[in-house]
Amino acid sequence: MIQYPSKHIEKAVEEISKLPGIGKKTALRLALHLLKEKEGTSHLLANSLIDLRTKTKYCIKCHNISDDDICGICASHRRDKSIICVVEDTRDVLAIENTGQYSGLYHVLNGVISPMDGIGPSELTVESLLERIKTNEEVKEIIFALSPTMEGDTTSFYLTKKMKNLPLELSTIARGVPIGGELEYTDEITLGRSIITRTKNE
Amino acid sequence: MIQYPSKHIEKAVEEISKLPGIGKKTALRLALHLLKEKEGTSHLLANSLIDLRTKTKYCIKCHNISDDDICGICASHRRDKSIICVVEDTRDVLAIENTGQYSGLYHVLNGVISPMDGIGPSELTVESLLERIKTNEEVKEIIFALSPTMEGDTTSFYLTKKMKNLPLELSTIARGVPIGGELEYTDEITLGRSIITRTKNE
Repeated sequence: MIQYPSKHIEKAVEEISKLPGIGKKTALRLALHLLKEKEGTSHLLANSLIDLRTKTKYCIKCHNISDDDICGICASHRRDKSIICVVEDTRDVLAIENTGQYSGLYHVLNGVISPMDGIGPSELTVESLLERIKTNEEVKEIIFALSPTMEGDTTSFYLTKKMKNLPLELSTIARGVPIGGELEYTDEITLGRSIITRTKNE
Repeated sequence: MIQYPSKHIEKAVEEISKLPGIGKKTALRLALHLLKEKEGTSHLLANSLIDLRTKTKYCIKCHNISDDDICGICASHRRDKSIICVVEDTRDVLAIENTGQYSGLYHVLNGVISPMDGIGPSELTVESLLERIKTNEEVKEIIFALSPTMEGDTTSFYLTKKMKNLPLELSTIARGVPIGGELEYTDEITLGRSIITRTKNE
């Protein structure tokens, strides 16, 4: 147990180290950095965190983070409203948007089914997704873009079962050897699957 | 340039990523974590940062972070007031306190001399240290516990020159092979010096 020289630094280290991936040593380094910086730096940071938590809205359609009730993507006339890409969280939306390869809509689940963590379908935006599909005849395809983990696969499987009687095309983003990656460093499960699910050269 | 889905998350990512060692991706991960947590978590964190920056004091004697005008170490009757250990910052005080091997006082320089970064003796608490030594006959020894870098060595050299005519013993913490470290992984400069500055077996 470290004896901090001031209760304010102790409290700051305690709160900062609650953030994921930040231990007490890093928290102390960050706290000492803020002490060296101008007072405005700490105020800007603190205010941005409060605004983030109190003012951020979620799109009522796709549940992505948004400034308005309906997010920019759902509101855009340039997006293809016949495709919905199902993702775990906002970071995945950003990653896919960043590729410039997708012009459809999204649905943010806010997690994946994980019985170990007590997360079932009712903790996610699953009901809202099913409702959205059923009440919206424009939708023709659902793309599952969940992490290739057990939890991601379980979630895809669950949703597929729920949707298989609906007039929809269901697909999953391709899995295989990452482009630019060295074959010898690819893990054996990915490499093995990439052989089984090989695609024909055209 | 990532297009964030909300200006609040964009602002939070901007402010968080100003912290040293935290990039935009980590900042986004931390921001999304706070969004998932209770509102109280963000408020506690934000308030602790503001309190840290606005309420933390510095000891008028040793310049360490403190809750009062004089820190717990300087005020303690159990500390040996004849020795002052000169360190770069609060983290070094914590590290040395943690060893349980030192019972003297400290002097926090708030940095080291680094001409490349525009930091000279006047940016540090050097004057205050010299004043403290000259006006205080109790002090018999100064230990330099600065980083074994060029900047640390420059600072030790500068202070040694300033103090050499005073009736003081000057010392530097031992440098050598870290205890528990593998000899073969020790860098060659440390290993080379550890041979030259070898100590006699008793």
